[in-house]
Amino acid sequence: MALRTPYLMFLGDAPDQLAAKTASGVVHWRPDICIGQIKLENCSADLGLPDMGLEEAAEAGAKTVIVGVANRGGLISQAWAETLVKAIELGFDVASGLHAKLVDVPEIGAAAEKHGRTLMDVRHPVRSFDVASGKKRTGKRLLPVGTDCSVGKMYTALAIEREMQARGLNASFRATGQTGIFIAGDGVSVDAVVADFISGATEWLTPENDADHWDVIEGQGSLFHASYAGVSMGLLHGAQADALVLCHEPTRTHMRGLPDYPLPGLAQCLAANEQAARLTNPAAACIGVAVNTKDLPPGEVSDYLKGVEDELGLPAVDPVATGVGKLVDNLPA
Amino acid sequence: MALRTPYLMFLGDAPDQLAAKTASGVVHWRPDICIGQIKLENCSADLGLPDMGLEEAAEAGAKTVIVGVANRGGLISQAWAETLVKAIELGFDVASGLHAKLVDVPEIGAAAEKHGRTLMDVRHPVRSFDVASGKKRTGKRLLPVGTDCSVGKMYTALAIEREMQARGLNASFRATGQTGIFIAGDGVSVDAVVADFISGATEWLTPENDADHWDVIEGQGSLFHASYAGVSMGLLHGAQADALVLCHEPTRTHMRGLPDYPLPGLAQCLAANEQAARLTNPAAACIGVAVNTKDLPPGEVSDYLKGVEDELGLPAVDPVATGVGKLVDNLPA
Repeated sequence: MALRTPYLMFLGDAPDQLAAKTASGVVHWRPDICIGQIKLENCSADLGLPDMGLEEAAEAGAKTVIVGVANRGGLISQAWAETLVKAIELGFDVASGLHAKLVDVPEIGAAAEKHGRTLMDVRHPVRSFDVASGKKRTGKRLLPVGTDCSVGKMYTALAIEREMQARGLNASFRATGQTGIFIAGDGVSVDAVVADFISGATEWLTPENDADHWDVIEGQGSLFHASYAGVSMGLLHGAQADALVLCHEPTRTHMRGLPDYPLPGLAQCLAANEQAARLTNPAAACIGVAVNTKDLPPGEVSDYLKGVEDELGLPAVDPVATGVGKLVDNLPA
Repeated sequence: MALRTPYLMFLGDAPDQLAAKTASGVVHWRPDICIGQIKLENCSADLGLPDMGLEEAAEAGAKTVIVGVANRGGLISQAWAETLVKAIELGFDVASGLHAKLVDVPEIGAAAEKHGRTLMDVRHPVRSFDVASGKKRTGKRLLPVGTDCSVGKMYTALAIEREMQARGLNASFRATGQTGIFIAGDGVSVDAVVADFISGATEWLTPENDADHWDVIEGQGSLFHASYAGVSMGLLHGAQADALVLCHEPTRTHMRGLPDYPLPGLAQCLAANEQAARLTNPAAACIGVAVNTKDLPPGEVSDYLKGVEDELGLPAVDPVATGVGKLVDNLPA
């Protein structure tokens, strides 16, 4: 699965900007491959891209329509299907991050078959994987881990990849979720593979590589999240990470979606992740902390980061506010 | 999914006794519901049950043909399919623990449809699950955890259920794998659910219950197995276990299937499991150790168990050799 670029971003009838969060993430990281947006009636989201009709986007060279938007009711509506069928007839592939599958909508499936176009439901792995072998692979790997879900693990990984490449280092982002897959153009939605193969899918995603090459892997969930820790554990073992980055959002009052669950302490979370990671890579170590400080009062950010550095003895950054240079400085040789 | 009993055990052309391990486990624990066995040409396994033809078994009241045997090459052969189709025509349901699905064999699927019979591929969950809520459920739960895969977690759970019921306690075995599902008549193959739903499937499998009721849950894998720890972690969190039993096979020289991975120490494994379990149940505690001593020299068994008890300060038993009475004695009130 490799997505053809550039993309036309489909916003459908997104009720607000948050519904287009996936699409916004793609545009933020890959403006170079997002050449336009297409909206239906009642769309209240905007990506700051030129509005385009399907024909116009095709003429401009767009190859894939990206459905990077949460839809109303979880189903693909008739209005959506009509537009996507027309896109297929014009030669577009279609890639979707919805739970509902494109291929399960009869007219979309039929159009793709008739016109020889590709449908990609990126939440649904299309291949099978071996169980993990646990065998040491050449090359190096970095994995962000979180105190909770949605604390900035993908953003941190992408910022680190960019900083490493800017320094001339050999680094590749490896996507494990839908937004990451649209950004990278390929990847595996590891939370959607069959449970026995979480680690095996991760091994497949980050294969042997040059000794100086870094895979910068998109993290998922948290070992301390009561719903998703199995995915986080399997990803950690399969990654065989040399370097971990602990990601945190300091204003969160409880684990996402679990009002009765407090967040773990930073030191506790770091220790649990290092302990688990060392099963498959005894050299695994946390190299720093990435804090999403956007909801802290601006005057408190630098004190907060300093406090984390003092507590853990590791560099602490906000990838947005301070950049990730101090994390890259601290990578093992 | 509830399997209709009694069972006719289908052995196919099993090349040896080991290939019929699943079927043997079912007969061991539920001889009351296994009324006969049926073999094809070149079958080298035997369950010690009466050999029966399909018509004879139907007359004897058998309701479901259980395919509890590893087959040659992983596919359902023509000879197998012919027998299973004939069984369906005679009114049997068919339940299989194979990776290959019965329903994917056209003549088997067609026969089941035509005759209104049920096909159950117990390795493949047929329903979807919610993500885990982490909410405390009424009733009590016990979960065996392992230093490795295949160290006796299912056997231990079944022995504990039986001992508890013999003492008049209110206990139910909850199956999480194919053999357990045939034994219990229902359950969920948790290693086959989509990764995001491991804990959610476990919550579904062990719902709220009477305050004095114990779910005795079949364990899976090991937190220290580089291939499967994600499943073990999700199961541990979803179980919200009050009581853990640590299961171990003392002659194992490396983790199953992973020649480069040594086994964890007992105290280390116990501590890691208690720590993870306490995320969803702060009262979780290990109540004892179940050792599979069958490959120890007979003269060393009692010294070995005594050594484990001294090291961990917990009762240690071999469920086969000594029974599990000391574990049940140590259950929390």
